[in-house]
Amino acid sequence: MAPNASLTCLHTAKLSPVRYGAPCLSLTSARRLYIASSNVPEKRERVVILGSGWAGYAFARTLDPKKFERIVISPRSYFVFTPLLASTAVGTLEFRAVLEPIRRLRGGVRFHQGWADDVDFSRKTVSVEANVFDDLASRTIVLPPSPPGKAVRPHGAPVKGEIFEVPYDKLVVAVGAYSQTFGIEGVRQHAHFLRDIGDARKIRSRVLSLFEQCTYPGGSSDGKVAEGTTKPLSDDDKRHLLHFAIVGGGPTGIEFAAELHDLIHEDLARIYPDLLKFVRITVYDIAPKVLPMFDQTLAKYAMDTFARQGIQVKTEHHIQRVRLADGDLGTEHGGLLIKIKEAGDKEIGAGMVVWSTGLMQNPFIETMVAKRFPVKDGVIGHLVKDGRTGGLVTDGYLRARTSTDEGDNKAIYGPVDGVLEDVYVMGDCAVIEDNRTLPKTAQVASQQATYLARRMNKTGDGVTTAMPPFRFRNWGAMAYLGSWKAIHQSSADELRGWMAWVLWRTAYLTKSMSLRNKITVAFYWAMSWIFGRDISRF
Amino acid sequence: MAPNASLTCLHTAKLSPVRYGAPCLSLTSARRLYIASSNVPEKRERVVILGSGWAGYAFARTLDPKKFERIVISPRSYFVFTPLLASTAVGTLEFRAVLEPIRRLRGGVRFHQGWADDVDFSRKTVSVEANVFDDLASRTIVLPPSPPGKAVRPHGAPVKGEIFEVPYDKLVVAVGAYSQTFGIEGVRQHAHFLRDIGDARKIRSRVLSLFEQCTYPGGSSDGKVAEGTTKPLSDDDKRHLLHFAIVGGGPTGIEFAAELHDLIHEDLARIYPDLLKFVRITVYDIAPKVLPMFDQTLAKYAMDTFARQGIQVKTEHHIQRVRLADGDLGTEHGGLLIKIKEAGDKEIGAGMVVWSTGLMQNPFIETMVAKRFPVKDGVIGHLVKDGRTGGLVTDGYLRARTSTDEGDNKAIYGPVDGVLEDVYVMGDCAVIEDNRTLPKTAQVASQQATYLARRMNKTGDGVTTAMPPFRFRNWGAMAYLGSWKAIHQSSADELRGWMAWVLWRTAYLTKSMSLRNKITVAFYWAMSWIFGRDISRF
Repeated sequence: MAPNASLTCLHTAKLSPVRYGAPCLSLTSARRLYIASSNVPEKRERVVILGSGWAGYAFARTLDPKKFERIVISPRSYFVFTPLLASTAVGTLEFRAVLEPIRRLRGGVRFHQGWADDVDFSRKTVSVEANVFDDLASRTIVLPPSPPGKAVRPHGAPVKGEIFEVPYDKLVVAVGAYSQTFGIEGVRQHAHFLRDIGDARKIRSRVLSLFEQCTYPGGSSDGKVAEGTTKPLSDDDKRHLLHFAIVGGGPTGIEFAAELHDLIHEDLARIYPDLLKFVRITVYDIAPKVLPMFDQTLAKYAMDTFARQGIQVKTEHHIQRVRLADGDLGTEHGGLLIKIKEAGDKEIGAGMVVWSTGLMQNPFIETMVAKRFPVKDGVIGHLVKDGRTGGLVTDGYLRARTSTDEGDNKAIYGPVDGVLEDVYVMGDCAVIEDNRTLPKTAQVASQQATYLARRMNKTGDGVTTAMPPFRFRNWGAMAYLGSWKAIHQSSADELRGWMAWVLWRTAYLTKSMSLRNKITVAFYWAMSWIFGRDISRF
Repeated sequence: MAPNASLTCLHTAKLSPVRYGAPCLSLTSARRLYIASSNVPEKRERVVILGSGWAGYAFARTLDPKKFERIVISPRSYFVFTPLLASTAVGTLEFRAVLEPIRRLRGGVRFHQGWADDVDFSRKTVSVEANVFDDLASRTIVLPPSPPGKAVRPHGAPVKGEIFEVPYDKLVVAVGAYSQTFGIEGVRQHAHFLRDIGDARKIRSRVLSLFEQCTYPGGSSDGKVAEGTTKPLSDDDKRHLLHFAIVGGGPTGIEFAAELHDLIHEDLARIYPDLLKFVRITVYDIAPKVLPMFDQTLAKYAMDTFARQGIQVKTEHHIQRVRLADGDLGTEHGGLLIKIKEAGDKEIGAGMVVWSTGLMQNPFIETMVAKRFPVKDGVIGHLVKDGRTGGLVTDGYLRARTSTDEGDNKAIYGPVDGVLEDVYVMGDCAVIEDNRTLPKTAQVASQQATYLARRMNKTGDGVTTAMPPFRFRNWGAMAYLGSWKAIHQSSADELRGWMAWVLWRTAYLTKSMSLRNKITVAFYWAMSWIFGRDISRF
């Protein structure tokens, strides 16, 4: 399949038997926004990109399609603009407004929906398992505990999809990280995550469903519980179900708490006025303070804002277990009980637990590290794993480091002797050897991606080290706090309150989004402001 | 719960501990669009409305909240603007643009999400089973074959939700009809329906997934099928999976075929140019012609348009069975095989079957007809069922007819002797005794609803027969044919082609939709026109 070959006007007879009437001309010109140039040389290097997150998508977007053939492999068919994901989970934005489909990348791109399952560095091929699991196409995957001595499949399920091989000239590994539950009982089964669009959809549905459940009158019309009718929920039950517990005080957890507060107080308060008194939002964190990336004054401002809004923040709290509540509340309403070390034997009731803490390496990293291949002069070597984070070690040019020392593999990180030609690593799964403390953030991932793609565009094959190595530039941090307030911090300045909120919104509108989504996001912000958030549950 | 009591500004201290900053004033005024008047008399008649379709929603919307307390009971929490549902199934419109949440009705409304399960005409109460089935909250329910002598539950599943009673002063039955599969094997399990938003979502996901599946390269990189890799799909397999079979040549089936054609030829053709040659769309109907509500010339124009677009229409075709295809194509790709009487033993392959034909009565109608209650002078009577359609018989004022003749029940329809006070029936489940051939359409349902609500608003209690009985006025019919063409027919005129398409769009924009959705629909039409439809699958 030549991906660019036919990306001309769709109204040509070759493509379709349709003949359009009068509007064809204007349709065609409008659609030209997406029409690719076909002046592409026949023989380009095949760059296979594993992953469609901040690193993989930004790289594919920046790499010049005239010079390289781009093949993206990812279990999901789009990039998620994660800073606005919490907004979609409460209905401020429509889900599709924060997605960019990979197949819509300009200049033509090949895409395979699936997991990188294996790699052969000698034959330069990647094995891919097609993602035919509809429910895994858009949700955070949380691995089950792996049986001893047996690797867990990337999706935590037995093989079900087709397996096929994809050859590469250059391989860019940007598979990101998985969510980590630290083996805490019940988190994987009962908690919600917030890393993908399917997660946001489930959260939105669950929040609305909890309010709906708490309005069921129960009992018979005379207030008694007649035979065959159900006991109504008590006030304590409602207080239990309308407690929203968020675990993790990073930006994701804090912003979700803020957005949830806005949804409840701006929209649900008018629809369910009698339930408002039962609602509680609590953020739990194991650390002594939340929002660690912000200055003390900004973090304090955030906590004061939360306190005024009635959102509780409980630091130094250790979650030990999450389980279904007893009786009808657990089975019929999905009520949960959280065991917290600091609360002793008393379990805390909640209708929803949102887990926004903890990352672990993608199991594919382990697969890659286990590979043996000739490095030079016939000596057998392997990739190098960082001892602290488990990520793949790269040089400053994001090339995968190799070692021939088998002792390394046990000590995990040891001396390196070379680089593996044509294999690059970026984002959450990469550790640059001279700069091992870079945070696992979207900023780092997208800066690495742009750096590498531009270098390849410039040097043609990207192998040269004539260009300077990667250097991270901190663009600052922002977080939304609810009630039209935010905090912003960079090396140059600090902002808080309403002005920071304006900056928060405009910054997100101008950041790496397609024109289509910029317009859509602005449209939904206006609509939510005028009409409120949509509350249909489906 | 007094539904209107607290529907004032949400920023009051009583409702929420939030204090907003500067933007409060403008937010408040913008939100006033939804703020209800609280000048409502304390004692109003309780009107319980069963259903939130064209009849139930239009009735609840028109009934004066100052005079009546409105209580809506429906398994779904919104009204679906069905004429645009097919557009959401292909991504021309966003799902939420065609939904109107019941809880957003102006003037305050009480709502219980669940099925009317039983009724007691003497105590004037309805028993409701709460809809706690998340997957049934937005999908077409197709009843399994009922075991002999045992009624099927409204949702076809054992009781799972809470049961509670709701008392009424007046009862408005607008429960609509269920989908009918005529007992054809496999339809319930394998076909898609298109009556609710969850159906549209599943169709959208399935269409995109079929195209994605057909791009999996299969095999190893050298073109051979290495050990551990999967055989690639053959051209025949692709032709099988990319056959879209639509059963039913009414407006729903025809418009879905047209919209699907647009999606494939305007959007997917550019993304999957190599697959276009495998795509087929076929509409099957048992009748000798499709679109029976249109004149011969318009129906012929529709067929000619379809023929030019490559959509096949096969009339007088009897579907006998739908089953999963054999081997990997069935298990891994969900390929289907359709047995058709006219094709003999040869089964037709398809990747998707959309079932858009056949209605049956809601099982709740049977529950109502089985009830016995004193009619007058202590004589026991019952409601009357129409022999042909199984609907409830009403008089011209939409009041439920009663009979004391037990023979009636066997003959199904016999002489009637009275009306059951305070019980009204509308829409698909109603049959007016003097006008029994009214079609089961949105037009009839919404005209009946508006008629009854206005009469009640005017006369206070709605019992009077001083006003004229219901009279149906045919507003004409419209259908979209794809490629920016439509047909329109009314008693006054006929239109076809592009002008009819413009009329089709503007008519739908001005019909019973909220301002919010009018704006949203116009927005998405513009966005789809400029940027194409979104193709993310989640």
